Amino acid sequence: MTSTRVPQADRTRAMRARLLEATVELLVERGFAGTSTTLVSERAGVSRGAQLHHFPTKNDLVVAAVEHLTELRGAELAEAVAALPQGRRDRRAVLRMLGDHFTSPVFAAALELWVAARTDEALLAAVAPLEQRVGRETHRLTVAALGADESRPGVRELVQATLDLVRGLGLAQTITDDTARRARILDAWADVLDKELTT
Amino acid sequence: MTSTRVPQADRTRAMRARLLEATVELLVERGFAGTSTTLVSERAGVSRGAQLHHFPTKNDLVVAAVEHLTELRGAELAEAVAALPQGRRDRRAVLRMLGDHFTSPVFAAALELWVAARTDEALLAAVAPLEQRVGRETHRLTVAALGADESRPGVRELVQATLDLVRGLGLAQTITDDTARRARILDAWADVLDKELTT
Repeated sequence: MTSTRVPQADRTRAMRARLLEATVELLVERGFAGTSTTLVSERAGVSRGAQLHHFPTKNDLVVAAVEHLTELRGAELAEAVAALPQGRRDRRAVLRMLGDHFTSPVFAAALELWVAARTDEALLAAVAPLEQRVGRETHRLTVAALGADESRPGVRELVQATLDLVRGLGLAQTITDDTARRARILDAWADVLDKELTT
Repeated sequence: MTSTRVPQADRTRAMRARLLEATVELLVERGFAGTSTTLVSERAGVSRGAQLHHFPTKNDLVVAAVEHLTELRGAELAEAVAALPQGRRDRRAVLRMLGDHFTSPVFAAALELWVAARTDEALLAAVAPLEQRVGRETHRLTVAALGADESRPGVRELVQATLDLVRGLGLAQTITDDTARRARILDAWADVLDKELTT
């Protein structure tokens, strides 16, 4: 009995994963409005019946994709932090890493959800608590990467400002791809943080 | 002949204005995907026929609304700058004013367009040059309000960073309304600018 149940569970898990990956891809390529359940099942190679069994509505699918995306974003950021140069604290490298993270396809998919949730209460109810969790985790990783001592007055706000800055740069990126401008801004801010966080 | 043509021109202008206002209102309330041409004509009190005469497609309407919105944003910001306390330079007041500007309904409407334009080439072609113009004007007003000397190295980048910061705060605001958090961040940023722009 176990030998038949285990593969079935594996198949189910793989099918769910394909559906969620397809949803995220379509959010990036076509936006929230352009992501239909039909396109998702086609992209994932999953029958409509099987898809509807797992996710009866578009919102069920999107909410699960939001959770999936949250894990993706956390894992991506943790990986990028781990890949930072060791030894001497290099805040320019930290900020460029954050700048890359907030302009990645995964950011674009999250942006689609944030903006759709602005005018969709059911989606907002799913997105808001996940965003809080991602926000706290991102903040924690950033504090560590910047070597910021949040017990000093004003430091916590500068870390938050840093994250709001890269979020703004990510949004600007959707209209104009200006990598050189972004690098100059992040370098200038890294120089400020070098002064503010170490004196 | 003039006496009949002038009122007609006035009526046409008023009708166009109502259609554009209605489009912006609907972008704020329902987002880009929820803004249909039918809803716009209902909200504006303009017949479908008259609307289609002026704006044959949704994109025609939205592009005209983008231009209208650009003017609104420019006028709103210029007004807010003019209302700043005179005399002693108060950068905290400047940043709170920018923070308010980037969380206003007009920002929400612009956000809807930016995100829709990300996956809609025709819309992007209309939005991108207007954004460039708004961006330059916003930068110019911010430089003046902050009393920033852009001939000094790094200053231009800090002004740009300031605008990307408030854009990021505006985006965060769509998910969580946290006015107190925003005020603390903007104050901390203003204190940094006080040091960086005057030493």
